[in-house]
Amino acid sequence: MKCEDEFVKWLQRRCPQQPVPDLGIGDDAAVLTPPPGKQLVISADALTENVHFKRKLVPSTLLGRKALLVNLSDLAAMGAEPWFCLLALGIPRSLVSSDYLSRLADGFVEEAGRWNVPLIGGNLSRCAVVQISVTIGGLVDAGQAVTRSGCRPGDSLYAVGELGLSCAGLGGLRVPQRAPLPATEEEIRIQEKDPWLAACLIRHLLPTPHVEAGLWLRKGAVANSMIDISDGLVRDLQRIGEASNVDIILSAACLELLRGRGGERMTLRNVLYGGEDYALVFSSDWQEDRIRARFPNRLGPLQRIGIARPSAHPAVLLDDGTACRRLDPKGFDHFK
Amino acid sequence: MKCEDEFVKWLQRRCPQQPVPDLGIGDDAAVLTPPPGKQLVISADALTENVHFKRKLVPSTLLGRKALLVNLSDLAAMGAEPWFCLLALGIPRSLVSSDYLSRLADGFVEEAGRWNVPLIGGNLSRCAVVQISVTIGGLVDAGQAVTRSGCRPGDSLYAVGELGLSCAGLGGLRVPQRAPLPATEEEIRIQEKDPWLAACLIRHLLPTPHVEAGLWLRKGAVANSMIDISDGLVRDLQRIGEASNVDIILSAACLELLRGRGGERMTLRNVLYGGEDYALVFSSDWQEDRIRARFPNRLGPLQRIGIARPSAHPAVLLDDGTACRRLDPKGFDHFK
Repeated sequence: MKCEDEFVKWLQRRCPQQPVPDLGIGDDAAVLTPPPGKQLVISADALTENVHFKRKLVPSTLLGRKALLVNLSDLAAMGAEPWFCLLALGIPRSLVSSDYLSRLADGFVEEAGRWNVPLIGGNLSRCAVVQISVTIGGLVDAGQAVTRSGCRPGDSLYAVGELGLSCAGLGGLRVPQRAPLPATEEEIRIQEKDPWLAACLIRHLLPTPHVEAGLWLRKGAVANSMIDISDGLVRDLQRIGEASNVDIILSAACLELLRGRGGERMTLRNVLYGGEDYALVFSSDWQEDRIRARFPNRLGPLQRIGIARPSAHPAVLLDDGTACRRLDPKGFDHFK
Repeated sequence: MKCEDEFVKWLQRRCPQQPVPDLGIGDDAAVLTPPPGKQLVISADALTENVHFKRKLVPSTLLGRKALLVNLSDLAAMGAEPWFCLLALGIPRSLVSSDYLSRLADGFVEEAGRWNVPLIGGNLSRCAVVQISVTIGGLVDAGQAVTRSGCRPGDSLYAVGELGLSCAGLGGLRVPQRAPLPATEEEIRIQEKDPWLAACLIRHLLPTPHVEAGLWLRKGAVANSMIDISDGLVRDLQRIGEASNVDIILSAACLELLRGRGGERMTLRNVLYGGEDYALVFSSDWQEDRIRARFPNRLGPLQRIGIARPSAHPAVLLDDGTACRRLDPKGFDHFK
């Protein structure tokens, strides 16, 4: 691919576009018909070279896939079903004619096909670094999106999925003289002899967006509030706390169970502060037994982690049974 | 602003959000209710440092404004009315604590307010260069979006707005030892003594998206096809030709009138190949007199430029009254 027009034509050919929008890639804009009774849920997120990844270490196929997955996770956190996506790529001139660009786009398109979310807009421009910007659109039944601000005092908090693995995987990537990763999960498992580290690397590169769990929690009116853990558990819970005017008190005993899910070598620090796991955290006023009895196991491991109480100065606290101490919400920040 | 959370909070405070979406900036995604009978029109475009602008020459306020304007132009080209926008910024670490970022965001928010298009999502990440990615959403009455593929043989083609000024303005910016531009149109007119060059600079930095003209042309069912001229007249007409299977034959006499609108110093080359003017070009089977009698003058200068004929190998041609020669569609390409 040598230019923007070629890129757009290539994307048009590669995108079967099921379900078909009214007008897809290749015009000034795409056109879609919102189904009656639904609201549009929309979000945008980017992966940038040297901030979110090192180009030499991570194959571009995996980056393309991850760019979609992290955006799907934002829809999951609203309880929305995916509807469409747009891909805007910034690429250094030297990479355009290489396989780098086509593999990146291939990874993205492949993952979009897997999740049945049509790519309806594409855009290519030169940039000093690789930059993958994705906009994702979803649908919810009107008035039913699950926000960060719906957590009520007395709600229990639950995590769907594991925490801390992605951060451990990132640590594994940062080892000096690390060999570049292969482009598939299978090859990563073969190259990386340590099965735990392989699992952590795969989690870091290909996080699972809990789309179906988010839908289930929204449709059953189980979740009062919800967020996906992209910047670390404490930092993202702080966001729920501030939006809902509650303190969130984490139970050390519950966190120990959550830590255990990440394997023997998982640390509490990674569970609390590691980012990019894209676990789903929600609050609910349902009894735990009632949720457990209905929550389908295939939607991921479910763990109660704490409780919310009213607060004028929201904080996240850790209760170890004897004392309750405040946790500093120092998750990953792009500028610290 | 020191971090992403601060940026998002700052945007929340700065955005009055009229008309108010159901859920704006600050959650995992925004939520909006599509009005009944309307379709969603959506597009994304980016401005990148060293590709679309030089950081030292152009104040960030103007970049923020331009980033919205060029996206609005994509909606104009579909005949859509603006509905919402999202802003994803990539910024070098060194600029985050300076005024650069807040002025950029200020410019964007100010322009969004002027066009009454609520900013519903914001995102900040570190990047080696300044990168401004915008997603824009609009609305059209169902089934009425004006595409590139609706041009019929026999349609006349018309331009709304001038062509070539932006390219001349870019030329003015590229003069060696050029002083950085001031941040407002008034100051640019004062600094740049040559009024023609000042007008060209302003067109380059603050193009006018012909949103109202696009709406008028769509609602009156005047336009069969439409495109905004971002990459040069010939190149963008080639896109209409390929999408509609027509040749487009430009009239040299008409182009001379269009050239004249750009002032004495305007060249035909700039009119044909200069990009970023964001004039609106449409095709119509209406008689020219009928369009002229109804088209409101305030929507911009209107000029007939040519005619479409059926073609299996679409091309753009220039008819000077004696001969018809093919024009090479070599507009601006990010990788040439």
